Amino acid sequence: MYRSGQWVLIATVALLLVAAGLSYWLTRAAAAPAEQGARVEFTGDGKLKRPEGYRKWVYVGTPLTPNDLNGGEAAFPDFHAVYIDPESFDHFEKTGQFRDGTVIVKELVSVGAKEGSSGKGYFMGDFIGLETAIKDSKRFKDEPGKWGYFTFGHKYPLKNEAAPEATTACNTCHQTSAKLDHVFTQYYPVLRAAAPNTK
Amino acid sequence: MYRSGQWVLIATVALLLVAAGLSYWLTRAAAAPAEQGARVEFTGDGKLKRPEGYRKWVYVGTPLTPNDLNGGEAAFPDFHAVYIDPESFDHFEKTGQFRDGTVIVKELVSVGAKEGSSGKGYFMGDFIGLETAIKDSKRFKDEPGKWGYFTFGHKYPLKNEAAPEATTACNTCHQTSAKLDHVFTQYYPVLRAAAPNTK
Repeated sequence: MYRSGQWVLIATVALLLVAAGLSYWLTRAAAAPAEQGARVEFTGDGKLKRPEGYRKWVYVGTPLTPNDLNGGEAAFPDFHAVYIDPESFDHFEKTGQFRDGTVIVKELVSVGAKEGSSGKGYFMGDFIGLETAIKDSKRFKDEPGKWGYFTFGHKYPLKNEAAPEATTACNTCHQTSAKLDHVFTQYYPVLRAAAPNTK
Repeated sequence: MYRSGQWVLIATVALLLVAAGLSYWLTRAAAAPAEQGARVEFTGDGKLKRPEGYRKWVYVGTPLTPNDLNGGEAAFPDFHAVYIDPESFDHFEKTGQFRDGTVIVKELVSVGAKEGSSGKGYFMGDFIGLETAIKDSKRFKDEPGKWGYFTFGHKYPLKNEAAPEATTACNTCHQTSAKLDHVFTQYYPVLRAAAPNTK
């Protein structure tokens, strides 16, 4: 009876450890989709579904080339608020590289007020457009740098899905002019500061 | 023996349930500090320690009033990248109000290039300054709107701690010109879109 009790005690402790481990693993696994899951989805025929939730991603910078400095008709007249998905930012911080699966979102914001209590300048108006770049060595294996580019429109309502743009529509200019792996890090101080050695 | 075995089985199952619950609770508790803890710290004599990690908070907008549009000497010549702490953003999304404890960080970024492949304009240079506003009904009970304002400098290296600014240095202008509770939501499309009824 005494010996049997000892075994029961050992078995109980062992089971407790297994249960604790299992519970921990289950908790982590349950938390994972929000933290580490895919940030974007594609349709069966290779269109990108419009990204969501990106305003809580990591902001990297805001270029501005307004109409009034470009003869009234700028190629990109709006504020560009640019984000990177948080997991790829963490990877960039550690390595200075854009990992396979990196998603970069460029949200277009109209120029609103041009004078405020702080002086004359450019103040953000409303959201008017959305574009996305994704590095995916399988899906975009034939594209320069393995980057695909998508446009959901330059005025609301935005499209819900977008097919990849032609290489010459976006990628060529990124390939030519962007500082680091098709990304304009020269204009994105958050990325430069995150991985200073890649400057 | 058989009866004793039954009790051992019941006790084992009960302990497993307790262990699983405890493990779940411990896991959640361990994850909490990063997700929900205080985002800023004060010194014993009421100075604010320079915030960290804010580049992973929620970006809300970027006003720009450059020197060349303000007679060569703008009051605020730099890009302002403005962030709100994530928990207060979630609260704002639900209520349209800035909760007690809201932290807003304004990072100053120099105007870098003024021409890029996308045209003439303003491109972000380097980080040069940091300011912070905090709504705290206890700490700033005598300030308009209960907001306190802090400046860590307009060039690097930044100060590590900052005493609250005089009311007239920041708060007065925010009180007069900011659209919603001392925050310039009229220039922050992310906040306006998050709680559209507060427009």
